[in-house]
Amino acid sequence: MTAKAALEDPVIEELRALLGGRFSTAAGVCEQHGRDESYHTPHAPDGVAFAGSTADAAAIVKICARHKRPLIPFGAGTSLEGHVAALHGGISIDLSGMREVIEVNAEDMDCRVEAGVTRRQLNDHLRDSGLFFPVDPGAEATFGGMAATRASGTNAVRYGTMAENVLGLTVVLADGRVINTGGRARKSAAGYDLTRLFVGSEGTLGVITEIGLRLHGIPEAISSAVCPFKDLEGAVNAVIATIQMGVPVARIEFLDEVQIDAVNKYSKLDCPVAPTLFFEFHGSDRGVKEQAETVGALIEDFGGGPFRWASGAEERQRLWRARADAYYAALALRPGAKGWATDVCVPISSLARCIVETRREIDEAGLLAAIVGHVGDGNFHVIFIVDPLDKAEMAKTIAVNESMVARALAMGGTSTGEHGIGHGKIDALIAEHGEAVAVMAALKRALDPDNIMNPGKMLRMN
Amino acid sequence: MTAKAALEDPVIEELRALLGGRFSTAAGVCEQHGRDESYHTPHAPDGVAFAGSTADAAAIVKICARHKRPLIPFGAGTSLEGHVAALHGGISIDLSGMREVIEVNAEDMDCRVEAGVTRRQLNDHLRDSGLFFPVDPGAEATFGGMAATRASGTNAVRYGTMAENVLGLTVVLADGRVINTGGRARKSAAGYDLTRLFVGSEGTLGVITEIGLRLHGIPEAISSAVCPFKDLEGAVNAVIATIQMGVPVARIEFLDEVQIDAVNKYSKLDCPVAPTLFFEFHGSDRGVKEQAETVGALIEDFGGGPFRWASGAEERQRLWRARADAYYAALALRPGAKGWATDVCVPISSLARCIVETRREIDEAGLLAAIVGHVGDGNFHVIFIVDPLDKAEMAKTIAVNESMVARALAMGGTSTGEHGIGHGKIDALIAEHGEAVAVMAALKRALDPDNIMNPGKMLRMN
Repeated sequence: MTAKAALEDPVIEELRALLGGRFSTAAGVCEQHGRDESYHTPHAPDGVAFAGSTADAAAIVKICARHKRPLIPFGAGTSLEGHVAALHGGISIDLSGMREVIEVNAEDMDCRVEAGVTRRQLNDHLRDSGLFFPVDPGAEATFGGMAATRASGTNAVRYGTMAENVLGLTVVLADGRVINTGGRARKSAAGYDLTRLFVGSEGTLGVITEIGLRLHGIPEAISSAVCPFKDLEGAVNAVIATIQMGVPVARIEFLDEVQIDAVNKYSKLDCPVAPTLFFEFHGSDRGVKEQAETVGALIEDFGGGPFRWASGAEERQRLWRARADAYYAALALRPGAKGWATDVCVPISSLARCIVETRREIDEAGLLAAIVGHVGDGNFHVIFIVDPLDKAEMAKTIAVNESMVARALAMGGTSTGEHGIGHGKIDALIAEHGEAVAVMAALKRALDPDNIMNPGKMLRMN
Repeated sequence: MTAKAALEDPVIEELRALLGGRFSTAAGVCEQHGRDESYHTPHAPDGVAFAGSTADAAAIVKICARHKRPLIPFGAGTSLEGHVAALHGGISIDLSGMREVIEVNAEDMDCRVEAGVTRRQLNDHLRDSGLFFPVDPGAEATFGGMAATRASGTNAVRYGTMAENVLGLTVVLADGRVINTGGRARKSAAGYDLTRLFVGSEGTLGVITEIGLRLHGIPEAISSAVCPFKDLEGAVNAVIATIQMGVPVARIEFLDEVQIDAVNKYSKLDCPVAPTLFFEFHGSDRGVKEQAETVGALIEDFGGGPFRWASGAEERQRLWRARADAYYAALALRPGAKGWATDVCVPISSLARCIVETRREIDEAGLLAAIVGHVGDGNFHVIFIVDPLDKAEMAKTIAVNESMVARALAMGGTSTGEHGIGHGKIDALIAEHGEAVAVMAALKRALDPDNIMNPGKMLRMN
């Protein structure tokens, strides 16, 4: 949009009047807000409105609603399925400036944060309280984005995902009304579970501006270990056995040979290049020792070992930092290429088969891809390292991805464990949910009849 | 409805043609289906349709939908807020005959059951598998009912409620379409969380016919203990300290003096008549010992003790059977009276204050009521033992209940932790959720435009 057109655009005029310098149509700002961390083509919005409060957000939404202009919530831009692309133009509402930790109720192990607070910011804030927030999607995402995409990550096997850790939300609806979906009670049977409806709604039902969160006690003891395996099946079967034995492992992450090689190079680790598990145990001193002994005895049956224990907090943090950077490490394997990180989640008994068959298809197609995953949940990622301009390569990648999704669904799994639908997996959602997608569309129409909230994502509305 | 009217009623004629002997308009059958376990006035439906399958349920719903006739799902009739009352007449759809455990996937720790399966039936079925289903609302409810009311209970502090333990549902929508809301993956980011929307929807959005459930490993060691306290504050503060220390207690239940007295008489226990906690610890042998030691050391600071340990599985079962029968025990304190079991849930730091103030109001009003609760979650129940025909007594009871709900909301809590809204707590829902109730009504209209699904419950539709 040219400067002249912008002047004649009433939405832009009204937003500028409302927000002054906190509204921008600068090309660089718009481009940055239409782009995520994936291979998806960026689509810049027509302008970016920086909200400083829920009242700001409501005023911004009301302007867009009056003009039926698309509105796309934006946090840190770390999503992976094109969630922030302005497919139909419109206004990006950037909540990253809402960075207040509103309250911490240590005695109740809960807190309330603004949408722009990030996980690391909150955990820094909680330092010395004995508490932490466990959900860790790897990227330094905002809580608004994490709630909107139902984020998960390495700790979910022990502590749950955002679905289990959000107590309540403040949401600006598509018409500008503001609602609170829940209080601070640990559980409630009062009415429809609006909290869980908005968690994972990807900005298509409203703008999340505040999030109430459960916190957890920092365990008395934490220990981490790395363990290589002779082969992929052995590693994954060791995970299955660990989960089936009921060991309350805090993290259990699988990295295949390609991923370990990438991590070694990127994060300067010296792990043997083999299918590898990263473990973390949380508990009392005795409990952690007991868990480690149980798993230690078990891995040998699956061709695993030796355990290499992280000595001290610093080495532990270095290890998990390397795991969190796995995506960037994989990207660095092929400079200039883009990452296409896709994920599925299957019942754990099918996990080894799903990963092995997927690895075989990747190799047969001659593609470069790393496999890494939150295998305790049955969730794994394939990070394709692609050149989006190479049509033949992209066609092969699309085929392998579709095949993997079909495989996961045939196993009773889901087309995405944690990345969400965005506009990259709409067909996968239909394949997975069938008639239930019509129900989702009916809910969307009920709350956003003009389809202004992040249109083109998750659902194809007519 | 007289026999002649029934003959002229096309819904009844069509249902009889569809179901034959599995449809009844017999007065006794209708009356039983309009009554729950509470003080609420029963409202009999015009007929009861016994569904044997999802296809049956869909056919029944289609007949009612065509004639815009109310439809009320019925499981075991153990709800407490008038959920099954046919306030506007219509058809009760009884799912208690759908008693098949469809599949158990032991290696994935999940299963799928028909709506009429009960918790004890499933756990009997799972015997020898090493697995169990933990959510235990006390009553021998069906899974359809437990899902529909977002049931919870004694184990929720450790294992979560139905919201955390349902993997997916088969639902017959208000127009007879059938959807599946989720597969067997442990987590999913694929689309709106329809599972959690239907869990707790109290039959107002559709009929739940099948439920996918998470299962849990039976712990290596289980130990239970009873512990009396000098006073109510001490008992509740011991709970708060236990939770805040992060002890992964499996159950921690509070029974006040009135309730302990009732339980002693009804279940032939010989507990000291004092505010009392029932504990259960799950884990490894060492883990359970460690938990018990931690809690044992802690209770003395709060005027608690001595612990009396249940020796062996039989005594443990007797103890928890007595706890499960607390409602019936309280009822037996005043033969011929009705029970009005109400519940709230508050942040745990406010729990002692909430219970003490509530107890004081009960006593000042001269009412007979027992207090019992899943205090680890901040959730407690008041069981008023009332004569619904005594207007003065009912007025006082209503006032104490309203005051308790207002107190819980002021503390950041919820108007019901697990009993739900039904038609008994509609005003409490409005007080709690305000504008969000309009959002719930919009969702209801989107999925049930003719308001045939359990009308008059949870929401006042116009």
